[in-house]
Amino acid sequence: MSKSYNVAILGATGAVGRRMIEQLAQSTINVKSLKLLASSRSAGTKLEFKGQALTVEETTPDSFNGIDLVLSSAGGSVSKKFLPEAVKRGAVCVDNTSAFRMEEDVPLVVPEVNPDALKGHHGIIANPNCSTIQMMMALEPVRRKFGLKQIIVSTYQAASGAGQSALNEMKQEAQDFLDGKDMQADARILPTKGDKKHYPLAFNLLPQIDVLEDSGYSHEEWKMIHETKKIMLGDMNSDKIKVTATCVRVPVPIAHGESIYFMVEDTSATAQDIMQVVADFPGNVLEDDIKHQIYPQPINAVGKRETFVGRIRPDYENAGAFNMWVVSDNLLKGAAWNTVEIAEYLDKMDLLHQ
Amino acid sequence: MSKSYNVAILGATGAVGRRMIEQLAQSTINVKSLKLLASSRSAGTKLEFKGQALTVEETTPDSFNGIDLVLSSAGGSVSKKFLPEAVKRGAVCVDNTSAFRMEEDVPLVVPEVNPDALKGHHGIIANPNCSTIQMMMALEPVRRKFGLKQIIVSTYQAASGAGQSALNEMKQEAQDFLDGKDMQADARILPTKGDKKHYPLAFNLLPQIDVLEDSGYSHEEWKMIHETKKIMLGDMNSDKIKVTATCVRVPVPIAHGESIYFMVEDTSATAQDIMQVVADFPGNVLEDDIKHQIYPQPINAVGKRETFVGRIRPDYENAGAFNMWVVSDNLLKGAAWNTVEIAEYLDKMDLLHQ
Repeated sequence: MSKSYNVAILGATGAVGRRMIEQLAQSTINVKSLKLLASSRSAGTKLEFKGQALTVEETTPDSFNGIDLVLSSAGGSVSKKFLPEAVKRGAVCVDNTSAFRMEEDVPLVVPEVNPDALKGHHGIIANPNCSTIQMMMALEPVRRKFGLKQIIVSTYQAASGAGQSALNEMKQEAQDFLDGKDMQADARILPTKGDKKHYPLAFNLLPQIDVLEDSGYSHEEWKMIHETKKIMLGDMNSDKIKVTATCVRVPVPIAHGESIYFMVEDTSATAQDIMQVVADFPGNVLEDDIKHQIYPQPINAVGKRETFVGRIRPDYENAGAFNMWVVSDNLLKGAAWNTVEIAEYLDKMDLLHQ
Repeated sequence: MSKSYNVAILGATGAVGRRMIEQLAQSTINVKSLKLLASSRSAGTKLEFKGQALTVEETTPDSFNGIDLVLSSAGGSVSKKFLPEAVKRGAVCVDNTSAFRMEEDVPLVVPEVNPDALKGHHGIIANPNCSTIQMMMALEPVRRKFGLKQIIVSTYQAASGAGQSALNEMKQEAQDFLDGKDMQADARILPTKGDKKHYPLAFNLLPQIDVLEDSGYSHEEWKMIHETKKIMLGDMNSDKIKVTATCVRVPVPIAHGESIYFMVEDTSATAQDIMQVVADFPGNVLEDDIKHQIYPQPINAVGKRETFVGRIRPDYENAGAFNMWVVSDNLLKGAAWNTVEIAEYLDKMDLLHQ
């Protein structure tokens, strides 16, 4: 019989936290008990798990006494404060923030892509950034079969990636725009909470996700570049695969799109070959039938765990280079589901202990 | 004293046609008379030009008797039917459809980029596709100074690029979505009128613009590739600059965004150098101040003639390679303004005659 675990979800009331509860309920993990944790502001909220109403508690270090597994999505500073406390008390933590992603002894894992990295964990496993995860799903089967030399990605990222409040803001702006009112007054969060200026996203495009750094890249773009190298090559600074990214927020509620240009080592690879390996990879759905106008769309991906890939075609002027279009639910495979899936793998690999 | 002209606008009632009237009123062209032409369905509509109400007439071959200049944006089949009749009657036609763009003796012109191509006209000059024009504006100064080897572009194209009815459809879908209603029922035009299936664009992304061809590319992508080669190199099939494109419709009313990755011949070029030549090019506005979160946004570009360029930064792993983000009003520089601007150049270059 499989082991059972005392589980805590940190940041349970957020857009991702709520989906973690739902994904955990549908997972293969045998949950002995579930504790929902959040800030004092959200304490007292009641949320349902498998038909039972649970009351959200304020997080303290002692919240983690007796906990085996922590799923965390309450923001980087909360993770930095509490996850070491949880680890100290014996828990294994799967963290959906950027707090520990680049620490050398913290595995950064997409379970279908680099499950073996889990073996080296020291109590904390990091869930990659949403936009990185779906790109890894689409490209890992290509890398395994044909080798990867270079990735150039442009993202079309949904509002919910900036949290539930950003999504609400975008919807309010959309209604104001349709009513002929000024949208600017609604803009308080996007493009990113921590920055000075705020702009409307509804019916607009914002080429800034997270803060802009001196390099000229946004921190989101930096994440896509270095997380890709860590996941695929085990080294965030490897130059074996060149990666560059332009990240743009688009007025879509849920599910990111990505236009990916990539070059493979084996230049004999055809678009048909690429489609085949993408389709055969677990967790992927190939939606690529141009005769019948079948291609990935955000509205079809919402609520699904899979990564949808289509519009695969060669760059006819560069042997071994291809374009593709990738869509996935940023709150599920990009966050809650990948986090719970890591926990499932830890359980199956008998690694859900320190 | 400058010459004056009898002008006709074909397709005067459309989203682009209305803007042609407005751009013509603000242009340096000395208009002796203006005739507004459309289909029988739109005949009788009254539209204003310089404070005067003009009545739209149904187009017939004889509508072009005595006309010196035709500005056309009524669709490819209408241009194919009527522009040869206008040319026969002595008019010079600037056509904002794809009808004649790839004919060898028809200049395809962005006035700031390749004005000399106008010299070879035989009565018809083609206005390029909207998404091509703004890319040419951003990259031509780079090509002139540093040489261009390769372009990889992902577009974020506004609904109005598919016409006023597509824009109306998207807004209706947006309202239905916000009201919790089904959007699918509204989808009758997008992604493209001529195709079988229709999908909602509001709060969604559609990686299909125009029809999808056997090559795997959409016709819009094909246009961006081959129009770029014709405009920059004078040969639609030249391999001197490699171009590939992924075109995506986004839920924005007006103004296209483009994420452009490009490689220059002179690998000593820096991001600062690129910013400088872009800023110095007439018609461009550099919006690239990341410290103050300044970058091009569609809502700021609407109603402006300029092309806005920002987020210019090097690919640190590839010498001579850069990313940039370009936004322009697809109905103005992408259509009505570029068409009127071509006529201004023809006038100034004394080429507004056969």
